[in-house]
Amino acid sequence: MKKLEKLLDRILRRVNINLKVQKFEVDPFLRPSVPFRKLSQFYAFYGVTGQHPLHFHFSHSNLAGSYFLGKCRVDGSILYKSDIRGDELRSKGESLNLRGIRMTLDQDEIISISDSLLVKTLVHSRSHDPENPEVFNIKNSASCPFANIHGSPLEGSFLGAFATADLTTLHGCVVGPFAYVQVGELWHEKVEPGQIWINQTEVFDFRYRFPEDVLKKYIRIEPGGLPGGRFMEFLNSRKADFRRVFDVVHLEPVPSVPRTTSLSRYAVVKPKTRFGANVLIAQRAYIENSILGKGSNAQENCFIINSHLKGNNVTAHGAKLINTHLQENVFVGFNSFLHGLAEAPLVVGRGSIIMPHTIIDIREPLSIPEDHLVWGIITSPYDLRLHSISLEALAAVTRMKTIGRMEFCGSGEKFVAAFKQRINHILEANGAYYDGRKNKGHAQKGQNIAYNIIQPYRMGAQKGIYPTIDIQP
Amino acid sequence: MKKLEKLLDRILRRVNINLKVQKFEVDPFLRPSVPFRKLSQFYAFYGVTGQHPLHFHFSHSNLAGSYFLGKCRVDGSILYKSDIRGDELRSKGESLNLRGIRMTLDQDEIISISDSLLVKTLVHSRSHDPENPEVFNIKNSASCPFANIHGSPLEGSFLGAFATADLTTLHGCVVGPFAYVQVGELWHEKVEPGQIWINQTEVFDFRYRFPEDVLKKYIRIEPGGLPGGRFMEFLNSRKADFRRVFDVVHLEPVPSVPRTTSLSRYAVVKPKTRFGANVLIAQRAYIENSILGKGSNAQENCFIINSHLKGNNVTAHGAKLINTHLQENVFVGFNSFLHGLAEAPLVVGRGSIIMPHTIIDIREPLSIPEDHLVWGIITSPYDLRLHSISLEALAAVTRMKTIGRMEFCGSGEKFVAAFKQRINHILEANGAYYDGRKNKGHAQKGQNIAYNIIQPYRMGAQKGIYPTIDIQP
Repeated sequence: MKKLEKLLDRILRRVNINLKVQKFEVDPFLRPSVPFRKLSQFYAFYGVTGQHPLHFHFSHSNLAGSYFLGKCRVDGSILYKSDIRGDELRSKGESLNLRGIRMTLDQDEIISISDSLLVKTLVHSRSHDPENPEVFNIKNSASCPFANIHGSPLEGSFLGAFATADLTTLHGCVVGPFAYVQVGELWHEKVEPGQIWINQTEVFDFRYRFPEDVLKKYIRIEPGGLPGGRFMEFLNSRKADFRRVFDVVHLEPVPSVPRTTSLSRYAVVKPKTRFGANVLIAQRAYIENSILGKGSNAQENCFIINSHLKGNNVTAHGAKLINTHLQENVFVGFNSFLHGLAEAPLVVGRGSIIMPHTIIDIREPLSIPEDHLVWGIITSPYDLRLHSISLEALAAVTRMKTIGRMEFCGSGEKFVAAFKQRINHILEANGAYYDGRKNKGHAQKGQNIAYNIIQPYRMGAQKGIYPTIDIQP
Repeated sequence: MKKLEKLLDRILRRVNINLKVQKFEVDPFLRPSVPFRKLSQFYAFYGVTGQHPLHFHFSHSNLAGSYFLGKCRVDGSILYKSDIRGDELRSKGESLNLRGIRMTLDQDEIISISDSLLVKTLVHSRSHDPENPEVFNIKNSASCPFANIHGSPLEGSFLGAFATADLTTLHGCVVGPFAYVQVGELWHEKVEPGQIWINQTEVFDFRYRFPEDVLKKYIRIEPGGLPGGRFMEFLNSRKADFRRVFDVVHLEPVPSVPRTTSLSRYAVVKPKTRFGANVLIAQRAYIENSILGKGSNAQENCFIINSHLKGNNVTAHGAKLINTHLQENVFVGFNSFLHGLAEAPLVVGRGSIIMPHTIIDIREPLSIPEDHLVWGIITSPYDLRLHSISLEALAAVTRMKTIGRMEFCGSGEKFVAAFKQRINHILEANGAYYDGRKNKGHAQKGQNIAYNIIQPYRMGAQKGIYPTIDIQP
């Protein structure tokens, strides 16, 4: 185990160097989340499909429980139960517009993770660093459980538990727990816990920050300990159900999944669940007693329980739906927690947008009207008024709008348009619009996936380190 | 599937070119044993231990169901359910005596399999080609189910079903079904079905050939069909028991296996079975209602049913023991079939040697005295007289001895000594003599093995082909 311990030390030191300016040390937030015994026991796995250009390279790393798809290299890093999905990387020859300048990629894009520690973190999409479109780079960085790195190269940065870096390049930044940033680029910035921040330079800016007492109830971080609070309690209570899917090589096929729907064999599906066509159920998703209508998806780390998704619904990475009914075209953002009760369900009207990192936790029935934007913390109809706006009203904003703790400035019209465009893109990418010939997406491309299992050295000084592996077509 | 079909054609053609002189075509013997559907469904796996120098390289090949340990490369080949064990390869710096000349290896030995088709074949030990001690080479060759390639580089050669090439370099040879050769080197030779042949140039020569009618009963080959006969019937009746061990990633540990005993998680163990210390149960072994005493082993493809092994017993690759009691230090050679009945058990006395490819198939109890050499086909006490000799009597032979169909010439003393030395070496290599500190063998070195699973492309033109994989420390 000696090499593995040294590797962890080395990574933490490298991250700390980068965050010295912030006076931030990552050790107390990450050491408790790295269980050495499991690091040398768990296998990692990668998918091979024939649809995604293939190149994996793993060296001097531990990859316990992690999953890979698409081009990826990992060097000198520890990825514990992380999910690295490179199926939206750009391909060689693809032409793109960067700040108004056209350029063509002369090689396939690759996710490169070096000298980093990612714990239960999802890495997805493609690089949004205009300086480096061929490499989705994560270097000298560390992230805590259920963080999302989405289209966001990271350098010398730290993500707290349930934090999301979305389409944002981060250099030397600390992003607090449950914070969400989608702001293009940040240098040596500290993002406070529970801060939701969406910014397009000189176009719009959306900010909301969870009150400290609310945050503490749902996600509690104590340096030197594991994350606690309602999110973790919810996840821990369903942890055991995942054991079987990781223990068995070939699970019996689940009956009656439509041909154009993709159900990962690393997802948990419990009775009574029904899937429509063009549905994507990603690995590490959990579905129980629910109906997923045509073109809806359950992305990684999603939980959908006693719920009904009418169709074309996005349940983004880490979102949880319990006793929740989504009308058509509802979008639920990253790590949202929508918790109704059997006797007090939540209904979300057609076309509404649940912002990333929204908490709706009700004890009486609640209906969200159609075409609304919803954010923050909602436990009652009263809260809803302070944490929502109709898309029509928002589109009419030209300078500024404050509702409760939410501050918006800039063009509401452009904000709504950008969101709608992105939701449409997500549905398209996931295969919601597949018609049997055109518009293939992940739901169709990931169907014939073969999973390969890799394991670390089991004893000696190398214990827990994976052999150097290079995989090419 | 197109590339896979082309690959098979290409391999068969390459083997045929080499065997043109023999007027032999391999296609009718191998095509029926290559199930294309399974080739693209089954996973392959390799072991990583930290005790065996690591280098795997797989390119343009199908490896369905195959297993690898130790350094190995496979290029342009199809290995279907084969077992490639490189854990006795020589290491860099090892000094060896070749034909009286000392030389030191300047690199680790590697098994290299190229342009070949191996079906359910076991490849084991190290190169015995004095011209090439760094590479255990298998090239332009094909082998049928349950063949053994043991320490035997093969070039342009064919092995029939249940054939064994043991410590013999083969160039352009055809070895018939159930034939066994241990003769050093053969060039453009045809070895008849059921021929048992052990030769050490100018020292001794042992020959026995199974009568054709006996052979047909146990192993029947019809060009264009699958192998048939009692061996295959026996194997097919227990095939289903292996399904579970290949379907589950982490099987529950079997209780009460001594710490110095190694039980592969890819073996089948059924009640009520007990293991002593220093026992090795290799992958693909099957043990049922049996006792394996201290230092005994069950190598790949062995079946041990209702049997008792007293201790320090070798059950070589593919040997089967049913209702059989082995006293201490009994050796049972490759692919032997020892079949007693509950009411008519077989007892083999201390120190006796059951030659490779021996068939004992009885309906009344039979005891083989101690320190005897046994070969051929035995179904009664009468047969035993015609197919055995005491080691003492054999050691006294100085020129020639004929018993039934067996012909021996040369030094009986040296023959017995060579056999005893080899058995001792096998026990030592397998860890039978481990005392808690010294004499570690496979039983101890293979204990902390991690299994890695690799899978082929599941669709498209590449279907059934494995990605190019390179694995190093």
